Amino acid sequence: MNNLEEMRHTLSHVLAAAVRELYPDAKFGIGPAIDDGFYYDIDFGKAKVSDTDLPKIEKKMRTIIKRNLPMTKRVVSRDEALKWAKDHKQDYKIELITELPKNEEISFYDMEDLFTDLCRGPHVKKLSETGPFKLVRVAGAYWRGDEKRPMLTRIYGVAFPTEKELDEYLKRQEEAKKRDHRKLGKELDLFCFSDLVGAGLPLFTPRGTELRELMANYSLSLRGREGFKKVFTPHITKTDLYKTSGHFAKFGDELFMVHSQVNGDDFAMKPMNCPHHTQIFASHPRTYREMPVRYMEATTDYRDEKTGELGGLSRVRALTQDDSHVFCRKNQIKDEVKRLVGIVKELYSTVGMQKLRARLSYRSDEDKYLGDKKLWEMAQNQIKQAAIDNKLDYFEQEGEAAFYGPKIDFMAEDAIGREHQLATIQLDFVMPERFGLEFTNEKGEKERPVMIHHATLGSIERFLSVFIEHTGGWFPFWCAPEQVRIVTVNNSVSDYVSEITKILDKVVLDKPLKYNELRYTVDESADSLGKKIRRATEMKIPAILVVGPKDAEEGIVSVRLRDKEEKIKLSELASFLKGI
Amino acid sequence: MNNLEEMRHTLSHVLAAAVRELYPDAKFGIGPAIDDGFYYDIDFGKAKVSDTDLPKIEKKMRTIIKRNLPMTKRVVSRDEALKWAKDHKQDYKIELITELPKNEEISFYDMEDLFTDLCRGPHVKKLSETGPFKLVRVAGAYWRGDEKRPMLTRIYGVAFPTEKELDEYLKRQEEAKKRDHRKLGKELDLFCFSDLVGAGLPLFTPRGTELRELMANYSLSLRGREGFKKVFTPHITKTDLYKTSGHFAKFGDELFMVHSQVNGDDFAMKPMNCPHHTQIFASHPRTYREMPVRYMEATTDYRDEKTGELGGLSRVRALTQDDSHVFCRKNQIKDEVKRLVGIVKELYSTVGMQKLRARLSYRSDEDKYLGDKKLWEMAQNQIKQAAIDNKLDYFEQEGEAAFYGPKIDFMAEDAIGREHQLATIQLDFVMPERFGLEFTNEKGEKERPVMIHHATLGSIERFLSVFIEHTGGWFPFWCAPEQVRIVTVNNSVSDYVSEITKILDKVVLDKPLKYNELRYTVDESADSLGKKIRRATEMKIPAILVVGPKDAEEGIVSVRLRDKEEKIKLSELASFLKGI
Repeated sequence: MNNLEEMRHTLSHVLAAAVRELYPDAKFGIGPAIDDGFYYDIDFGKAKVSDTDLPKIEKKMRTIIKRNLPMTKRVVSRDEALKWAKDHKQDYKIELITELPKNEEISFYDMEDLFTDLCRGPHVKKLSETGPFKLVRVAGAYWRGDEKRPMLTRIYGVAFPTEKELDEYLKRQEEAKKRDHRKLGKELDLFCFSDLVGAGLPLFTPRGTELRELMANYSLSLRGREGFKKVFTPHITKTDLYKTSGHFAKFGDELFMVHSQVNGDDFAMKPMNCPHHTQIFASHPRTYREMPVRYMEATTDYRDEKTGELGGLSRVRALTQDDSHVFCRKNQIKDEVKRLVGIVKELYSTVGMQKLRARLSYRSDEDKYLGDKKLWEMAQNQIKQAAIDNKLDYFEQEGEAAFYGPKIDFMAEDAIGREHQLATIQLDFVMPERFGLEFTNEKGEKERPVMIHHATLGSIERFLSVFIEHTGGWFPFWCAPEQVRIVTVNNSVSDYVSEITKILDKVVLDKPLKYNELRYTVDESADSLGKKIRRATEMKIPAILVVGPKDAEEGIVSVRLRDKEEKIKLSELASFLKGI
Repeated sequence: MNNLEEMRHTLSHVLAAAVRELYPDAKFGIGPAIDDGFYYDIDFGKAKVSDTDLPKIEKKMRTIIKRNLPMTKRVVSRDEALKWAKDHKQDYKIELITELPKNEEISFYDMEDLFTDLCRGPHVKKLSETGPFKLVRVAGAYWRGDEKRPMLTRIYGVAFPTEKELDEYLKRQEEAKKRDHRKLGKELDLFCFSDLVGAGLPLFTPRGTELRELMANYSLSLRGREGFKKVFTPHITKTDLYKTSGHFAKFGDELFMVHSQVNGDDFAMKPMNCPHHTQIFASHPRTYREMPVRYMEATTDYRDEKTGELGGLSRVRALTQDDSHVFCRKNQIKDEVKRLVGIVKELYSTVGMQKLRARLSYRSDEDKYLGDKKLWEMAQNQIKQAAIDNKLDYFEQEGEAAFYGPKIDFMAEDAIGREHQLATIQLDFVMPERFGLEFTNEKGEKERPVMIHHATLGSIERFLSVFIEHTGGWFPFWCAPEQVRIVTVNNSVSDYVSEITKILDKVVLDKPLKYNELRYTVDESADSLGKKIRRATEMKIPAILVVGPKDAEEGIVSVRLRDKEEKIKLSELASFLKGI
């Protein structure tokens, strides 16, 4: 695949060459190969370049490629390089050249006399080797990622070895675009943002709140079944907590700092919940009889992310974790991990993401890992055994563990083949030490517990961003915010509608979440039936009950599901709905 | 009752006189009459005075009272007053005299030559008129409430017209002390505090979390039944939100300010939720068909309270409101308020605080009230009608409304006769204006909604502080964190215990909260039966199931409730428990 990278990198040069012909004053930043293709960051000066200009640029690129020029490397002195950049008024290149290490070889790549660029290479030999590509979009990008530097225009292209692969990729992109959770979030009225509240701080509407609560409750219910108990902790803490845990030294920059105007105390918003949970464990003496102690809490954490990196629910400043912590004995690790792996498998199977890969991350021989080496080995063995016992599709990676313990990360594949890292199980030998956690063992001696961090959904917001796109907004029946909508043919059927709603009021789903009362609405508006059905379909309501005078007479209901329509007797409606 | 105040005030002088005899170097601050009695703030210099010294001081007071000296007022000049204070080295009195307004009459009260104090009076004529009293406790109090001034010793006394009233008061205090929620919170393992997390930031253990979730879920379920939908909003916001709402100008000092280290943005932690909820209402255009729009959210607010004012759950820095907001048309106010009043009555009746008084707060003719006067009058009428329709025990107070609208506050009486202000219903004409909220009416015109703020429990933490003391920790069966504990006579009955737990696993309470699965534990430890029962009773478990070999043989269970014990057949156990 090295050739693929060369091919993509060459295309970024061709892109720059085309741009220079069309916009002679353009100044060029950098243009690397990336996953799926390439980009180039360009300062267009006063010219405005948008997606609508891409076909023109792409056409010019194809013309250039047809000339099949060679890509020739030319090593130059620093002075030559600088002179070239100055002659061509390439300010960004001047900066790049100036900052190159003293002894580094400096090279240009020429397309004969058409276009020259500062570049380390490598490239394909001739332009004909570049293969199928397409320019896809324009975005803004700060020069060198620095918000204080100029905003350049980044043009993205995609490129693949074959037309087929390119087509497939573009189709998948098209599909992903249709499923974009930001778009669906608006269309299905799931969440919104407010300029007054701020970026990265989503507000969940009734429908979105229904969805997130169902998912969170389901996730916690699986752990509740396994002996986890809910706890409740505040969203702020004195910084002392993080100074003790060690988070302050490590993540101090990413904390939202909170200041008391009343007495000048310094607090931080919690970016994770483990230190808070240790304080509940430590609130009274523990004995081996209580172990393992298992806490869970779906609670919102705050992380001071850069505004530029925020997008929909994928990356937010307020993220709710379905978090849990087990405090257990060393010989209980395997059972506890096994329990959690079972929960992860069950949940992702329920949401239709059965294809799950697990990465077991172990320590390497480096010094950075804290805690006893023997303990690590024992724990790694227990984790692996839990993976085997649960028939996980797993792979092992040495040197990928956190400094405080080995872990399992889960990658779930969505409906259009993208992999997302969501659930995680992490052992922790360090935090119990830092907080001096202990319990009394059978011999009356103090023993230190091990902590196991786990979130099944991970961040609920990020999970939803994946889940919305995975389902395309067609949520499984049990968790659809509005599961059923009754639409009437005309206003003569209101008595019959009351009969139906009396039935619906008694429908309570039991799986996968218990006590899940049916959520329905009635559209008795004066609009036409067609309009009402269209409206319900646009909202992706899983079951639309169409009710007209004839249905009333016959005692039936037409149930429109996404893929079929059925006439159901009133007496069978409840069990039909429970069976969807 | 004016005489009662004089009597109490005189007792504070007697207290000071007694202290001066016992501690000649004592310096006196102020000593007013208060509800239930009196206090005096005293600087004892190097002497340490604690509760154990009170009997001695009280004895001296009684000796003084026996002398039945007269309380004589004497008007003096500022210079005389200052000279007296300086001669007696009464530094605090010097400060008080110096700060008296220029034209104010300055007076002393003499108990003949025994004791003289700077005082405006009035007092009873002779010490024999002071009536029954008792010194109750010692506390620290900053001079003039200023944390930067010296900490004085405050001695509290209580005094009543009759011995009977004093006795009743002391008994109630004794009872309140036993029920102190801070004490019970620890004993029943409901919540804890951590020095690392900080004062006023309670951490809820599994039991406390169970209790708070049951109460919150119950509270929200009542509104859910009435068409309220849950929403979810972040705990922080850009300060812009509060600048628009007007809260920033009014409550800016009480906000926890949040600072982004990444990009320097200024945020605040939300001290209330209304502004956030307006942003969801405003997230898309609304029509009259949707009105009223009803949002609810049990979410944690943060207020920057002074550390000195924090205590248990009564006053915290992290308070969770069971908050809701109705956006309605002007002619919908009465129905909406009525709905909410009904919910308040139902909830407080369920928790055993049926005795509820309501204060209807109206505007006065002052200028401070915002919004149209006609609108106020109409709204006040609607509130009153809702109170009448709900048969509320209400009283009306002009000039007590918030500046943004009239309101109803509810005072609930607890088991030992104390009144607590908890639920509130507040109309708001201002915030919809500030945020430009609107909907389209039948004529296609824009109309402004009215907002109705409501919390049934109020702050869940404060409600719990009241509820724990109200019940003395003997929670009603439905909301006890641990409802049932099985204790075994010996280890021969484990099969029978499994039979019982199979039954318990299927018990789900339906009232007052639906789908309330039974919470039980089994104590099969090797401890003696007596010890096991004692342990369960100390935890105030409502139902203790005692199970021995004989019970197993007979297929019965001994159920110990708080006030009785019954033998129940296994086949009737489930329905018995559901009927508690």
